[in-house]
Amino acid sequence: MSETKTAITPRREEDFPEWYQQVVRAADMAENSDVRGCMVIKPWGYGLWEQIQRHLDAMFKATGHKNAYFPLFIPLSYMEKEAAHVEGFAKECAVVTHHRLEVGADGKMRPAPSAELTEPLVVRPTSETIIGATYAKWVQSYRDLPILINQWANVVRWEMRPRVFLRTAEFLWQEGHTAHETAREAMEETERMLRVYETFAREYLAVPVYAGEKSESERFPGADQTFCIEAMVQDRKAIQAGTSHFLGQNFAKGSGIKFQSREGREEYAWTTSWGVSTRLIGTLIMAHADDDGMVIPPRVAPTHVVILPVTPKPDTREAVLTAAEKLAAELRAQRFHGDPVTVEVDTRDLGGGIKSWEWIKKGAPVRIAIGPRDLAQGSVMVSRRDRGPKEAEAVPMAEAAAKIPEVLQSIQDALYARALAYRDEHTRCIDSREEFVSFFTAKNSAKPEIHGGFARSHWCGAGKCEEVIKEDLKVTIRCIPFDAPQEEGACVVCGAKSGKRVYWAKSY
Amino acid sequence: MSETKTAITPRREEDFPEWYQQVVRAADMAENSDVRGCMVIKPWGYGLWEQIQRHLDAMFKATGHKNAYFPLFIPLSYMEKEAAHVEGFAKECAVVTHHRLEVGADGKMRPAPSAELTEPLVVRPTSETIIGATYAKWVQSYRDLPILINQWANVVRWEMRPRVFLRTAEFLWQEGHTAHETAREAMEETERMLRVYETFAREYLAVPVYAGEKSESERFPGADQTFCIEAMVQDRKAIQAGTSHFLGQNFAKGSGIKFQSREGREEYAWTTSWGVSTRLIGTLIMAHADDDGMVIPPRVAPTHVVILPVTPKPDTREAVLTAAEKLAAELRAQRFHGDPVTVEVDTRDLGGGIKSWEWIKKGAPVRIAIGPRDLAQGSVMVSRRDRGPKEAEAVPMAEAAAKIPEVLQSIQDALYARALAYRDEHTRCIDSREEFVSFFTAKNSAKPEIHGGFARSHWCGAGKCEEVIKEDLKVTIRCIPFDAPQEEGACVVCGAKSGKRVYWAKSY
Repeated sequence: MSETKTAITPRREEDFPEWYQQVVRAADMAENSDVRGCMVIKPWGYGLWEQIQRHLDAMFKATGHKNAYFPLFIPLSYMEKEAAHVEGFAKECAVVTHHRLEVGADGKMRPAPSAELTEPLVVRPTSETIIGATYAKWVQSYRDLPILINQWANVVRWEMRPRVFLRTAEFLWQEGHTAHETAREAMEETERMLRVYETFAREYLAVPVYAGEKSESERFPGADQTFCIEAMVQDRKAIQAGTSHFLGQNFAKGSGIKFQSREGREEYAWTTSWGVSTRLIGTLIMAHADDDGMVIPPRVAPTHVVILPVTPKPDTREAVLTAAEKLAAELRAQRFHGDPVTVEVDTRDLGGGIKSWEWIKKGAPVRIAIGPRDLAQGSVMVSRRDRGPKEAEAVPMAEAAAKIPEVLQSIQDALYARALAYRDEHTRCIDSREEFVSFFTAKNSAKPEIHGGFARSHWCGAGKCEEVIKEDLKVTIRCIPFDAPQEEGACVVCGAKSGKRVYWAKSY
Repeated sequence: MSETKTAITPRREEDFPEWYQQVVRAADMAENSDVRGCMVIKPWGYGLWEQIQRHLDAMFKATGHKNAYFPLFIPLSYMEKEAAHVEGFAKECAVVTHHRLEVGADGKMRPAPSAELTEPLVVRPTSETIIGATYAKWVQSYRDLPILINQWANVVRWEMRPRVFLRTAEFLWQEGHTAHETAREAMEETERMLRVYETFAREYLAVPVYAGEKSESERFPGADQTFCIEAMVQDRKAIQAGTSHFLGQNFAKGSGIKFQSREGREEYAWTTSWGVSTRLIGTLIMAHADDDGMVIPPRVAPTHVVILPVTPKPDTREAVLTAAEKLAAELRAQRFHGDPVTVEVDTRDLGGGIKSWEWIKKGAPVRIAIGPRDLAQGSVMVSRRDRGPKEAEAVPMAEAAAKIPEVLQSIQDALYARALAYRDEHTRCIDSREEFVSFFTAKNSAKPEIHGGFARSHWCGAGKCEEVIKEDLKVTIRCIPFDAPQEEGACVVCGAKSGKRVYWAKSY
């Protein structure tokens, strides 16, 4: 069956990076704009982002956070307030230097020389410094703490090698920024939000993740500790799907977030920040899509069910469309995880095969075809996106609506199970450096992407060992897992004593 | 009673602009940031924006629109694509000229000279040109039309005299951008979306508006026709609360949005754009707030009901808090316009009077106080924000929850009725220029803001007459109303023949 024709060319195993681009295009989710590195997120891709936003936002609110909005622009001098942060972020930024345009001597528009800003403004690459300056004004006493705020926003980091959803100059994200009275509270917050991300990835995105701490070299610039969730995608690489940072008092000192403590002393607050971005969409594609296009987990699908009326002849057209709309209404009265089932009836004047394939490529969880023959038999044909494009099950019309919520849940579960099995299959405990090198070396030079996956190997804790491996194999420590058992072992790089295995992988 | 102490100083009639700033501050809705002209929208203000977004978004989707996202940056050359648009928008813009920072010889950061952009990028002041360039790629045939897309985004227009929510350098908005096959369809869309705004203003914001067309001088740069809704606020000035533009083929020609028509000819598409912004929050404040602070219509309130447990003594504290939480749970099971009633129990360790006044100033629609005495009597004290701060009604505890939805509706209705009465009281048919001048001239030089209101006066249609009045009185035509009857008359400025009255006012 290796020669089965697929909707996406090339297939995953042939050229994973190109397959990714083709899925984005075939699913009509996004495209590159004329502005270097900036993408246009098309309705189907944005609809997915809206679902991600909606569910995460509810989880943030359930954990006591409120949304607010802070300026897009950061004065240049703010970027210098936290030393490590400067190193990490004050580099590839979009810099605003003028506030007016004028027509020059050559008749063309240009930034007006008379409107040069005294202090350039940086388009936010992240908002710790501008939000910190604001919190410094809000906080006087321990009574003003904690501050638990999230922002949904666009950010800009100039990228030299942009790739839609994965690495773009402008992207959308949320950034939580909190300030606390004690280190312990701030650490609890940092962990709480990482667990929110882990839960969201598992239950909504159907993506299993490893949760843990970053090693020092992978830490957020300015953080004391960075925690992350890491997913494996179908080329066996890792992608960081969310981060939560314990910032200690570093940014509080840089920004002057001080308060009078319960004991009457002046103290610096303890802060955290945490975020996920439109990169999650790239993660979803690489984790679930197949050689026929996108596959969207039902809990974040912009539309759960697409009804495809098959109307070959004018004389049965009306009856088919009526039945389709009736079924749509019945479906919308059903609930999936508390929300109404969402339905689109695709009545476009196009061939049934063309329409069906469009929705397969878009990854709609369920397709329901209704034609004159189905009407005569009192049934509809139900197809699930997690199964083959030609598999369809005849379901009695009267039972279809009531059955769909369980079908959606079954798809959700199947996608998670498949991703989990894939990850587990390609995660291996490795104890010798030789095996480690072999694991991360592609066996077939024609498929340079295909290597082993995640290695669970011992690490002594030395930055030098990480560096060597990064240099040699482009492999890094993705996280030091929370839930790994203490276990005596020897560092896979240098052989020194180690008490825990960590996850190593190539990554996005 | 004129000496009653109010929470806001000055009162509206004393100094309206300063009162406005004080309400924003007292309600804790927003503040100026250190970045000139950019505001920080605080949780209570942002919560209001979230409600506005949620309801408008549902209305946009119900009229067939989908959301998408386009780049923040616009190449400078795009700004020149539509001649009138250049004039109107390519002026006070934030201009990105560099994409990297570096440390200069003086040890300070600066834009890296080696990283100057070949073509500067403008931070979008509005997105017609960048979206037009994208639509040009999407549209080939009449089958690709209509395109019905909305974007929620931030935009930047450099402002020399910023004022929170009303005029800020960066603000949040939505911008709908649609492309159609025919002029008629585009015009229908333009009008449909204006009606959506009108309905939203009336039914959600409780703000009555006049809907109509702008005169040529007030048109959106590049539009063939601009339609608007105009509200009166409590200094009797007008504020434009939403606009919908019929762009003809101007932007389609500038951007190259061409399609093959049903007849096989190449034609330019017809486009529209329409938007409302965070300025709506400023409108709400000026329309409904009073001398005690903000007053929020229930349908857009971040929280409908605030429960204030009164716990003077430790021995009754537990019982009071339990009763408060029980009532909160009962309230959350109630529905107001289909959504659960939202409740906050304010358990902060502050005096009851302080807490109560905070919520008055924030404009929460309903406050419910529960104390030991209330518990003993089996009742709670319910206060409505549209009535005096000391008015409260005892309601039996068992009936309170069920009663709140109708109380909320009653507040919503009362706010609309009050705003409508105010507007009608200060809208006058004026036929002589002398009376017109007098109407717009403050009678008391100590209160320069207080003038007549809206004049319904005849206009001959000449731009010159508008100019004279704008020059002399700072009064402009706010709109040429849709629903005004044809009526013979004489232009209030020049006396020439006129067939319709238009609305004249001072404006924000």
